[in-house]
Amino acid sequence: MAIITIIGIGQYGSALACVAAEKGNEIRMAGSPVDDEIVDACRKTGRHPKVDVPYPENVKFYHCRDWEKAVEGADFLIGAVNSFGVDWFLNDILMKLDPSVPVLSAAKGLMEKRDGTLISYPSYWESKLAKAGIKRDIYALGGPGTAEGIINHDHTHVTICGKDNAILKMMKNALQASWYHISLTHDAEGLETAVAIKNAYALGVAIALGRAHRLDKGAEQPHFNSQAAVFYQAAKEMLRVLELEHAELDSALVGIGDLYVTSMGARTRKFGLLLGEGKTCEEAQELLGGITLESLVVVRRLSHAMTVKARQGKVNLSDFPLLQYVMSVLETGKANALPWRRFTYENL
Amino acid sequence: MAIITIIGIGQYGSALACVAAEKGNEIRMAGSPVDDEIVDACRKTGRHPKVDVPYPENVKFYHCRDWEKAVEGADFLIGAVNSFGVDWFLNDILMKLDPSVPVLSAAKGLMEKRDGTLISYPSYWESKLAKAGIKRDIYALGGPGTAEGIINHDHTHVTICGKDNAILKMMKNALQASWYHISLTHDAEGLETAVAIKNAYALGVAIALGRAHRLDKGAEQPHFNSQAAVFYQAAKEMLRVLELEHAELDSALVGIGDLYVTSMGARTRKFGLLLGEGKTCEEAQELLGGITLESLVVVRRLSHAMTVKARQGKVNLSDFPLLQYVMSVLETGKANALPWRRFTYENL
Repeated sequence: MAIITIIGIGQYGSALACVAAEKGNEIRMAGSPVDDEIVDACRKTGRHPKVDVPYPENVKFYHCRDWEKAVEGADFLIGAVNSFGVDWFLNDILMKLDPSVPVLSAAKGLMEKRDGTLISYPSYWESKLAKAGIKRDIYALGGPGTAEGIINHDHTHVTICGKDNAILKMMKNALQASWYHISLTHDAEGLETAVAIKNAYALGVAIALGRAHRLDKGAEQPHFNSQAAVFYQAAKEMLRVLELEHAELDSALVGIGDLYVTSMGARTRKFGLLLGEGKTCEEAQELLGGITLESLVVVRRLSHAMTVKARQGKVNLSDFPLLQYVMSVLETGKANALPWRRFTYENL
Repeated sequence: MAIITIIGIGQYGSALACVAAEKGNEIRMAGSPVDDEIVDACRKTGRHPKVDVPYPENVKFYHCRDWEKAVEGADFLIGAVNSFGVDWFLNDILMKLDPSVPVLSAAKGLMEKRDGTLISYPSYWESKLAKAGIKRDIYALGGPGTAEGIINHDHTHVTICGKDNAILKMMKNALQASWYHISLTHDAEGLETAVAIKNAYALGVAIALGRAHRLDKGAEQPHFNSQAAVFYQAAKEMLRVLELEHAELDSALVGIGDLYVTSMGARTRKFGLLLGEGKTCEEAQELLGGITLESLVVVRRLSHAMTVKARQGKVNLSDFPLLQYVMSVLETGKANALPWRRFTYENL
């Protein structure tokens, strides 16, 4: 059995804690600096305030200030921060962490380099650490899986990416459960890009559906045809982006599986529906309880990266009509007609 | 404006009639030999018994015995028969039809050759006609689109495939509408295979969901994770089959878009849910009102075709665990545990 330290005490980190603890591993969860109250609540009640199911008994909780204690003797550390904690995780944890402890990141998202190209969080952290003289490989976990589903033992298939086979297999052995299935790959950039950009495209599917609902005027049709038409285009543009990253086919397919679930459920869908129904970005965010949405960040970064690549002659922007449309909805706050004709092709 | 004859007076043929008639084309619909009563009802009421919306005024109805009158002067003929009318359409219509009238098929499915390989309906008809000394190219229409959605002006993207560019464009011009978007390709085998096999794989997604519902015992979780895991595997196996057909990427993506909509809606989903919940094939069919399901035919034909190809050393059957699982559910009537671990990979 392993000792696993999880940094970040949100829903997704809690889901991983449940999986790993149910296998008998010793789990130590540490919050970020703003999580002290949640840590106290977890200690007191044995459950996360936003999760219905109690933690298994072999999960212990640490305040942020004690994170170094939480990591003593750990086999590996999981970073379960959201994209707004990326630099905190870098500066306060990774820069100070014992170099012999492997790190697995469960964050989904992409960073933008100064030249507009995209890099995954692991690559971003690795390069920042290297500049500080710290050589560290970061491992990452991606793939379709809501925290709620994992906690409720719904079958879930995720992929762990990274460099060293022995470490990949050690992480897989520690986390794999009868309902939690793990693939392994070296294709870190491909996988991380795929699971990040699917958020941008799922927003496209949801906006189209919200707009159709608005035009329905309450008739509540299922709009399967238009959803499928946007899904087709989303998959096509995702493959184009991933080809630029030389992604493995498996990574691209993981992204498309993730697109399916994100188009159907998740907050990104709710947000896109509201935009399509005529709400502005701000109104939609307010209606959803002021949540910060990673999909917004991804749309902007992806859109900018493609614009830069187009300037370099590497892509043709007209090959990304859905991305351009989603970006325009975010910019103007108006979900106008989709560019349906631009989704058609003539391979003659 | 064009004169278009539609053979087959079901829902899908009616949807195409509505699109084409609203553009001002003259539409002549002829039923099959068993459709005389429906033809009479359409003439009397101006609407199809199973469709909520009336036909536009420029749609005329013909009994099967008068089909040759319906085709006089037509610019092209649409075959909107289901897979059970394939040989009737061949023998009673195509064998007798004026060779100068182009034919567009809207049927979805695949035929099996004696050696177990699959061919599309258009290729099947073309080869049978050639044997009878009749040289004819058949065009076909495929892609995600429920009849209901098309009739209700939901945006729909379909693809027409065939050999001659002028005929492809003539058909596109006649049918394209502000909500009905048409792509064109020469990749007939790829497109027809993609839109046929998606039925087999959508059944897999639905069986997994039905089984999960059964194990939930009424908890009614959404099971997004397990749906996405099966969707990933479905897309992967579909791409493998389509690679054998040298399908264009666009054709494969149309199939994946179609997989999305078929997994979410449509009869195939309802049927798969019942199987997953523990019903046998026969019970599920009875519960759905004795419907005949094209997906059953496709699963069996595809499964057999892959077995034949495996014997020839062209594929490895272990690369199709989801197809094998769906086939086993149909054969045994038992939706046992899915082979989740076989969906994982180690690209190391």
